[in-house]
Amino acid sequence: MTYIKDGAEIYRRSFATIRAEADLSALPPDVARVAVRMIHACGMVDLPGDMAWSGGVVAAARTALEAGAPILCDANMVAAGVTRRRLPAANEVICTLADPRVPALAADLGTTRSAAALELWRDRLGGAVVAVGNAPTALFRLLEMVAEGAPAPAAVVGIPVGFIGAAESKDALAASDLEFLVVRGRRGGSAMTAAALNALASDEE
Amino acid sequence: MTYIKDGAEIYRRSFATIRAEADLSALPPDVARVAVRMIHACGMVDLPGDMAWSGGVVAAARTALEAGAPILCDANMVAAGVTRRRLPAANEVICTLADPRVPALAADLGTTRSAAALELWRDRLGGAVVAVGNAPTALFRLLEMVAEGAPAPAAVVGIPVGFIGAAESKDALAASDLEFLVVRGRRGGSAMTAAALNALASDEE
Repeated sequence: MTYIKDGAEIYRRSFATIRAEADLSALPPDVARVAVRMIHACGMVDLPGDMAWSGGVVAAARTALEAGAPILCDANMVAAGVTRRRLPAANEVICTLADPRVPALAADLGTTRSAAALELWRDRLGGAVVAVGNAPTALFRLLEMVAEGAPAPAAVVGIPVGFIGAAESKDALAASDLEFLVVRGRRGGSAMTAAALNALASDEE
Repeated sequence: MTYIKDGAEIYRRSFATIRAEADLSALPPDVARVAVRMIHACGMVDLPGDMAWSGGVVAAARTALEAGAPILCDANMVAAGVTRRRLPAANEVICTLADPRVPALAADLGTTRSAAALELWRDRLGGAVVAVGNAPTALFRLLEMVAEGAPAPAAVVGIPVGFIGAAESKDALAASDLEFLVVRGRRGGSAMTAAALNALASDEE
């Protein structure tokens, strides 16, 4: 069987293909670099057409990570996808979804476990980098918490996936005052979200 | 903020939307059930048009899992996405990519770490359920190992993503004698792959 076995060469050719095929012209250079990694994680060069962002999101996330900010993830798959050696300050990668307190919190609050798990972020939320890659309810709940006075995160990567609430939750994030990066519509997910985090953490390709 | 907070209702409406919008008519019922979960994980109802499978793949995977077969994953994100409570026999979910022997194996074999990690599957490969959701080189290497006489897995979910080798590796799997499920082309990834595994493990929606 004939195929390329050199990992570095596979990366080089992958990123070259993406840069040749994707229309990145509407993206500032720092966001374009993030987009390239997101495209690499999903195989779809049309992704930039659905992307939206605030002007300072890449710098805000990088600055926060360099200062040691934790990364707060809504799903274990997102946390599993963060490449630890790319993190500039051995940053903590936190997902509270499996915490034993979460089912009772969800019942008390009348919401999903994904949203209830954010209650356990409160002490770490100020200045953190938040990554929602699965549950629209988690992203909605984050916006509620900040609106209710919780400390604001430094940046929010909001790329939940799916059919019920995903598009609406990302539109709500994009309408907020937070620094944000989203993929509008139904597309999204943990792989794309982890890829965005890995790009925000380091310029290395 | 107004949004649905009832997790069961979100699932119900999500699957109803998928079944209303996706054209599942070319899929046998057991594969269609897997497709619905894969669509749920990526937000794209056109996925069935790129899917290919062998006729016995769903039954073979289910039978193997019920008999206690391990799930062998190429990436930690795939392993992280397998819902443990859906597994019928508390099956082991194994990813050898982070094993300390892998970098040396990759250097010796002149291949990627993802492909080299499969050397550590050999003792478990016969009758296993394999899930490749990230690296085309892992899927190519699996096919080489089986062609060279390694014990065959019961079923292979082959959904690596990307621009270099992904489509070709999935075409090669689909041309093999193994029981398989693939998404042809560039699309794929750990979320879609874990969703397929979760559907193969249990009929529960």
